[in-house]
Amino acid sequence: MDQVKPYVIGVDLGGTNTVFGVVNARGEIVAENSIKTQQYKTAEQFVEAGVECMKPLLQQVGGTDQIQGMGIGAPNGNYYNGTIEFAPNLPWAHEGIIPLAEMFKDAVGIPAKLTNDANAAAMGEMAYGAARGMKNFIVITLGTGVGSGIVINGQLVYGCDGFAGELGHVIMDRTGNGRPCGCGRLGCLEAYCSATGVARTAREILSSTSRPSLLREKPLDEIESLDVSIAADKGDEVANEIFQFTGKMLGEACADFAAFSSPEAFIFFGGLCKAGDLIMNPIKEAYDKTVLKIFRGKAKFLVSGLMNANAAVLGASALGWEN
Amino acid sequence: MDQVKPYVIGVDLGGTNTVFGVVNARGEIVAENSIKTQQYKTAEQFVEAGVECMKPLLQQVGGTDQIQGMGIGAPNGNYYNGTIEFAPNLPWAHEGIIPLAEMFKDAVGIPAKLTNDANAAAMGEMAYGAARGMKNFIVITLGTGVGSGIVINGQLVYGCDGFAGELGHVIMDRTGNGRPCGCGRLGCLEAYCSATGVARTAREILSSTSRPSLLREKPLDEIESLDVSIAADKGDEVANEIFQFTGKMLGEACADFAAFSSPEAFIFFGGLCKAGDLIMNPIKEAYDKTVLKIFRGKAKFLVSGLMNANAAVLGASALGWEN
Repeated sequence: MDQVKPYVIGVDLGGTNTVFGVVNARGEIVAENSIKTQQYKTAEQFVEAGVECMKPLLQQVGGTDQIQGMGIGAPNGNYYNGTIEFAPNLPWAHEGIIPLAEMFKDAVGIPAKLTNDANAAAMGEMAYGAARGMKNFIVITLGTGVGSGIVINGQLVYGCDGFAGELGHVIMDRTGNGRPCGCGRLGCLEAYCSATGVARTAREILSSTSRPSLLREKPLDEIESLDVSIAADKGDEVANEIFQFTGKMLGEACADFAAFSSPEAFIFFGGLCKAGDLIMNPIKEAYDKTVLKIFRGKAKFLVSGLMNANAAVLGASALGWEN
Repeated sequence: MDQVKPYVIGVDLGGTNTVFGVVNARGEIVAENSIKTQQYKTAEQFVEAGVECMKPLLQQVGGTDQIQGMGIGAPNGNYYNGTIEFAPNLPWAHEGIIPLAEMFKDAVGIPAKLTNDANAAAMGEMAYGAARGMKNFIVITLGTGVGSGIVINGQLVYGCDGFAGELGHVIMDRTGNGRPCGCGRLGCLEAYCSATGVARTAREILSSTSRPSLLREKPLDEIESLDVSIAADKGDEVANEIFQFTGKMLGEACADFAAFSSPEAFIFFGGLCKAGDLIMNPIKEAYDKTVLKIFRGKAKFLVSGLMNANAAVLGASALGWEN
C-alpha cells in the first residue's frame, strides 16, 4: 500500500470567493489563497485561474508529491461523478454539467473528489468539529439557501444519484399559499429559514403592521438577515419575533427529520447561527414540543464547531483524504 | 470461523398472530407454526408458548444445532437492545420495556435479534423481494398504521437510538386542523394513509355529501379500507376519489423523503397495495408533480415482491443470519 502523503487540498467553491487551502493531517490550514468565483466566463478559465492560485501554496509544502488528494465543496456538486450540475449562481456552470473534479485532476496532476457544500460542511464537522465521534447527525446550513449534510452510520448520505440531503426543500406549507421558493415550488423550508427567507419575514411583518422596530431605520427592501440579528441582540421585539418564527419552523422540520434518521445531533452552520440562543432556543422549544414522544429530549442542538475556522475548506479537505 | 448453519428462524410478531418459520438459505420457509399474540398476560407466558410452538419445527430440521440464529420482527421493536418498548397493541408489552430477544435466546438456546416490523419487511425485500441488488430504498408499510424501513448504502437505518424510520409520523398538515393521530399529535401521514385513515376518509366524504356510492351499502362506522378497495375495483367514483386523496398524500410525502435520501425505489407493502394501480398511480402522479426537479422521474414505485409469501417471516429471518 502507498504511504499516505502529509497534506490535502481543500477547496471551498462559494458564490463569491473560491478558497484553496493546504491542510495537514491535524486539520490545520497551513497555506491559503483565493480567487473570485464569478470573474470567469468558462469552467476552463476558472480551473486555469485556480491552478495559478494554488502554485505558490504547492511550492510552500514541497510540490504535488506531498499532496494526498484534493477535495472540493461546491454548490450543486455531485459526489458520484465529480460534477457541478446546473448551479444557478455560477455563470460558468449554470447551464450544464461541468466535470470539475476531473478538470482539476488533469490540470494539477493529483486525484480530486467533489461534493456539495453542505456535505463538505458535514465532513468537516465529523473530522474536526462538533460531530467528532458521532455516527448519526445532520448538519443544516443556514445561508443564502438552506442546505444539509446527513450522516448515517458514519457515512455521508448521497442516495442513488448523489443528490440526497436537500432538506431545504421539504415542504413546510402545503396549503397552496406557501412562499415561492427558488426551486419553483411553494412552501419549502428554504423559503422561510434561509437568510433571504428571514429578510422576507422581516419585510412582511414590518409592512403589515405599524409596530415600532429598529429595523425601520433601513428601507424595507434593503433589510438583510444580519440586520435582524443586530436588532434582536439589542432587544428589538419584532426582530425577536422573526427569530421565534424562523426557529419554530426549523424545530418542526427537525422533528420530521428525527422520524427519518433519529440523529444524535442537529448541527447548525452559517450566518444565522451567529444569533446564538436567539435562534437556537426557539428551534429546541419547537422540536421538543412537536417531535414524536420516543425522540423527545434525545437529540442535541449544536452550533457548528467550525464557525471561526475556514470550515468549508476543512470540510472539503476531509474529502481529499478519501483519494 | 464457525461454519454457517443451514437454517434460521424468522418470527413475525403481529397484533393478532405470531408466526414462527424455519427458513433455509434460499429464503424458503420449510416449516411454520403460529400462536395467538394476545392470548398471554405476561411476556414470560408468551415466550413459553412460543418455545412450545417452535418445538415441532426444530425437530423437523434436526434441532437447534441446525439453526444459525433467530430474527424477530415486532411492533415497537428496537434493534439495538432487542427490546419491545411500550407497544400499545400488545397486552403483555404496552407498559414497559420487554427484552424479548434475550428471553428467546435464553429459552431456546440460540442467538436472537429483533427489529421493528417495517425494518424486517425492508430486510426481506432486500434479501428476497423487490429490492434485490438495491443499496438505497424505502419500504413503506400501509397497514393498521403506516410504518417504514429505510435502507441507505445497503444498511438499515436505525439512528442513534434504534427508532429511526418512523415515516408514518411526519406531519402532512401543519395548519393545526390536521387529523388526530394515535401518537397524540395532529396531521401525521399515518392519520390519512393507514387502513384506518382510509376508512376515516371514506366516512368523511360519505357523511359530508349525499353522493351515491357502493360504500353506502354498509353502516358508516363499519366501513373498512378493504371495502374501499372492493368498491373502487367496481368503478365506484367515491372510492376512487378516496384512493386519489390517499395516493396524493403518499406521493407528496415521498417527495420529501427523496429530498432526504434520494432512494432508487419506494416499495409499498401491506393490505392497501392490493388495490394496485388504483393507489400506485395517484402516488406516482403526485410525486412527479411535486418532487424537486433534480429527482423527477428517477425513483421507481414498486409493490412489495413478497406480498404472497410470508414476507414478514422472511424479513425477520434475514436478521437471523446476522447472528
